[in-house]
Amino acid sequence: MTGTPTPEPVEGPSGAAREQAAERLAGLATPAGALGRLGDLAIWVAATQGAVPPKAVEEIRLVVFAGDHGVADHGVSAYPKAVTPAMVRTFLAGRAGVSVLAAQHGVTVRVLDIGVDDDLAGVDPAVQAFKIRPGSGAIHVEDAMTSAETQAALDAGSVVAAEEIAAGAQLLISGDMGIGNTTPAAALIAASLGLPAAEVTGRGTGVDEVALAHKIEIVQAALDRAGDRADDPVDTLTALGSPDIAAAAGFMAAAARAGVPVLLDGVISVASALMAERLAPGAHAWFVAGHRSTEPAQSLALEKLGLDPILDVGMRLGEGSGAVAAVPLVRSAALLLRDVALLADLDLG
Amino acid sequence: MTGTPTPEPVEGPSGAAREQAAERLAGLATPAGALGRLGDLAIWVAATQGAVPPKAVEEIRLVVFAGDHGVADHGVSAYPKAVTPAMVRTFLAGRAGVSVLAAQHGVTVRVLDIGVDDDLAGVDPAVQAFKIRPGSGAIHVEDAMTSAETQAALDAGSVVAAEEIAAGAQLLISGDMGIGNTTPAAALIAASLGLPAAEVTGRGTGVDEVALAHKIEIVQAALDRAGDRADDPVDTLTALGSPDIAAAAGFMAAAARAGVPVLLDGVISVASALMAERLAPGAHAWFVAGHRSTEPAQSLALEKLGLDPILDVGMRLGEGSGAVAAVPLVRSAALLLRDVALLADLDLG
Repeated sequence: MTGTPTPEPVEGPSGAAREQAAERLAGLATPAGALGRLGDLAIWVAATQGAVPPKAVEEIRLVVFAGDHGVADHGVSAYPKAVTPAMVRTFLAGRAGVSVLAAQHGVTVRVLDIGVDDDLAGVDPAVQAFKIRPGSGAIHVEDAMTSAETQAALDAGSVVAAEEIAAGAQLLISGDMGIGNTTPAAALIAASLGLPAAEVTGRGTGVDEVALAHKIEIVQAALDRAGDRADDPVDTLTALGSPDIAAAAGFMAAAARAGVPVLLDGVISVASALMAERLAPGAHAWFVAGHRSTEPAQSLALEKLGLDPILDVGMRLGEGSGAVAAVPLVRSAALLLRDVALLADLDLG
Repeated sequence: MTGTPTPEPVEGPSGAAREQAAERLAGLATPAGALGRLGDLAIWVAATQGAVPPKAVEEIRLVVFAGDHGVADHGVSAYPKAVTPAMVRTFLAGRAGVSVLAAQHGVTVRVLDIGVDDDLAGVDPAVQAFKIRPGSGAIHVEDAMTSAETQAALDAGSVVAAEEIAAGAQLLISGDMGIGNTTPAAALIAASLGLPAAEVTGRGTGVDEVALAHKIEIVQAALDRAGDRADDPVDTLTALGSPDIAAAAGFMAAAARAGVPVLLDGVISVASALMAERLAPGAHAWFVAGHRSTEPAQSLALEKLGLDPILDVGMRLGEGSGAVAAVPLVRSAALLLRDVALLADLDLG
């Protein structure tokens, strides 16, 4: 075991702002509770900002952490690995699903090759500035990476978060791209929650019944292989994760430590959030769940984190897409608490 | 009975466009089904436009039909009637909940006093151009209005829809404002679905247990009083509805006949949609449900219309707010089907 030193707990959003925000919400010219979830979100946004009324959430930045996964060569995905670099190029061309949503909502997109198994010839070298290795180990038979690589990936995510925050981010989102990535995500969640593979493993991009059974075997073999190394978060990432997921976990932990909220996406993003919480206890108070994906592990991890997703529209695209689709609702929450008239201002004749 | 003449069925959205849209969706550079509900919505938008790829849904127009309700003097609401004109003024000042959401999403808001029990001194006379009467009858003891008033309200809604469509509306939304309005909405839904009051009646703006029991008695008395007049849609509106709800129903029926889609809000909007479907059979194919409200009647009516809401965030503000909150997702659906790369365009090396 690496024996990760016991981390400092992360301080949560402002309790005073939360209280003031709840008071302001109760004073709006709307019936009590009528904004439903948007009212709760508004209080959370205000608490993360330490400001009542909250500021508009204008500057939202998405970082896509791309990487390949050794397990993709072992029949866990409906797609070949060549799709990963092709999709990285599609992101860079602004034509992936999340690119379209991000353009709609004015969300900045940064694409990073953390572990793609391709040299991505001809792409802007900045995309590969944080590359750890080309593809991870096949986790049912070997570690995803070395401890040093895990640490480098965590550090990369931390640096990227700092850069995005320096660029003005008020809210961060992590996106993913990588054929096979729901397998390490399921393994990380199972290991962290102490669950068997059969409870966490889903169809990912859409494998059939036979391939799903095989995928469950792969995840269970990985869990068995990791054994009690799963008690340590860094070791868990080394054994069962991947450079891209570790980078996203480092990104989220750093955001929470810096007091910048994070909007979570699907199973990859939530696996990263769960690892971030293990690395930086209390980080989850800075997270909000954008959507419920169809992957069972995502719901289980969200429950563990105490998070209830905003959207439940059956999306399972990854890329950060479910989080970006939820962006307007987070913005609505802040605007409602800021701009709706107060009951006290009504002229009741 | 008025004996409403059997109406012409409404022609649905384009089947050919629906089929082409489904083919385009299957060819996008996303796994099959990965867009979930957004994929279904994209197909629906394309079918309503008769265009593949669909055009962006830019011009969205909300009309708030305001009115008072005789039952509000009989203990069915947590708020006094004076709130209705005060809130009309708040809409006009752009400071109601839905005003804030509409400003966020670039949705045009038009406020009409159809039946407010106040002269709204000093407001722009255009707001009262379609006023039918000041307040409706208390439906547990008398008709909401006369047959002639119902017809005038339906016609008003139809004219307003035509005006909004002429102004360029690609998607219409009806909003509501009126203390007591969940009572006629519940009565209309119960009468149309053949359900007892206890199954449809909810807490509206938030009445307590005792007031809820009383509200159920009021709704049941209204249903008993209407008797088999509920077999005719116009008579149902006359006995149990209100001018504002009838106007919204006329608005939606006219939109469907003109081939312009409608995004539904909460229980008032959905009661209007149900009446629109009874007046213009097939109209529901032009409707999509924006959100699930906490009022039981809304879910029951949506089920009857075969509609599944996009959002489920516990909102119960009315005003059109739940529909406007869902606007970005309808827009996302169209943009995804229009702008995401095709699988055939990917460079798989």
